[in-house]
Amino acid sequence: MLCSVRMRAAQGGSHEKGGKHISGAERLVSKEQLPAITTAMINRALLHSRGEADFINITVEAVPAETIEEVACLPIVTSTASGVTAGREAAKEELVRAGVAPAAVLAGFEALAGLRASMRGAMVVDAQTGKRLDDRGERGIRVSRMDMLDEESYVGWLQQQGYDNSHIREAVILASKVISAPGAVAELCWSDDPEYVAGYVATANAYTRFTQLKCQGSPIGGRIIFVKENTDVEQLIAYLQYQAVLIKVPEAEDKLDAVFD
Amino acid sequence: MLCSVRMRAAQGGSHEKGGKHISGAERLVSKEQLPAITTAMINRALLHSRGEADFINITVEAVPAETIEEVACLPIVTSTASGVTAGREAAKEELVRAGVAPAAVLAGFEALAGLRASMRGAMVVDAQTGKRLDDRGERGIRVSRMDMLDEESYVGWLQQQGYDNSHIREAVILASKVISAPGAVAELCWSDDPEYVAGYVATANAYTRFTQLKCQGSPIGGRIIFVKENTDVEQLIAYLQYQAVLIKVPEAEDKLDAVFD
Repeated sequence: MLCSVRMRAAQGGSHEKGGKHISGAERLVSKEQLPAITTAMINRALLHSRGEADFINITVEAVPAETIEEVACLPIVTSTASGVTAGREAAKEELVRAGVAPAAVLAGFEALAGLRASMRGAMVVDAQTGKRLDDRGERGIRVSRMDMLDEESYVGWLQQQGYDNSHIREAVILASKVISAPGAVAELCWSDDPEYVAGYVATANAYTRFTQLKCQGSPIGGRIIFVKENTDVEQLIAYLQYQAVLIKVPEAEDKLDAVFD
Repeated sequence: MLCSVRMRAAQGGSHEKGGKHISGAERLVSKEQLPAITTAMINRALLHSRGEADFINITVEAVPAETIEEVACLPIVTSTASGVTAGREAAKEELVRAGVAPAAVLAGFEALAGLRASMRGAMVVDAQTGKRLDDRGERGIRVSRMDMLDEESYVGWLQQQGYDNSHIREAVILASKVISAPGAVAELCWSDDPEYVAGYVATANAYTRFTQLKCQGSPIGGRIIFVKENTDVEQLIAYLQYQAVLIKVPEAEDKLDAVFD
């Protein structure tokens, strides 16, 4: 039995009352970890670079072990194209390589870059037509109920590759779940944290991190999930929101095999 | 600036999905106290005598200091009428003394004793006619956003009188807020904790604790707020739910004055 812990924080009242989204967090943890995890989530909401929250909601829900799926972690690649324009060009190429039609890539970038406020959740967009398929407006689809299978080996695996910030730790888990969803082709995301300008494109092949996808200081971020034509959107959304998923990094044996190959 | 912290916990899914209510809690605390308070609330939900929760929701909301009202704590009286029948008779007499019509008292007891499941919130009932005035069904009105002004002096004041359990600590705060509400005449309550058979009647004069108002082992409890005729029920409900209130115990000076009078 694990517990899904979900936090959302806003400023100027709750999200429902029009408050500005400050911070969110998702974990799947044991009961014993609940006090430490909720404390960390509250501190995060109160000390966020987007501002101090005056509304925090935390939901804890038991998740039976037998309903949890294991999903392989995406390998991480970094693209160091310098500046926003070059970063976005490289990200577009990556999306096209994954099978997103150029017109849909363009529509996606326009939708993200045109946001007037951050989205808490994701837009679901047709990878061929570029048409938005979900009806959740500015709220979007929240990807929920996921975590790393083994925190220690995950953090170690990231550190070996030189990744040590919480943004990437959480984003790789989220993206690995997104790409495992039925119909998902690719995900494009940049953060709403004004101090964090990196972003990523996730595909079945890799999580490609672009060192700059937005301007320094911009508090507006969001994510787009591109899906195959004829995807059952309700089924996809149900998977993203409700299917509990633990993300598994390549095992030590695999790494040793690679060394001796 | 204080923070309102509200917890509700259920078993078999969330309250909205029909889960059984396990536990609730209300505090008004400083930001620094949030980690300790939320940890205590989670442990309470997981270790409750009504069962172990599998759904917990915690909401934290900033409350500007200037909006908070101070309300005097009700003095506590204990009635040791022995057994459920004698306890309920004594409670009825107390309600009638406070101005609740005998027929309304009877209707109130029938409503509480006839519940098939615990109510998370209170019923609002006309003190003359006995008619229920709120439209919240089995959910009732949750009395929210209240705490003691000074925890140490409150706990000390209770201990001086021999009261040292958490039920009474929380109930006296809630009842003091209820009785300060516009139109409130009296409150009748017994707990949904199967191990806690005491209950109370609160009036403008006192919080009268009856050592037994329900049978040992019964997991069904609830509360009734009796109100004057022509009470503005929506205004009363808004006060009970949203007005932040800190409850103040009689000051040390007052107690000394009493000694030297």
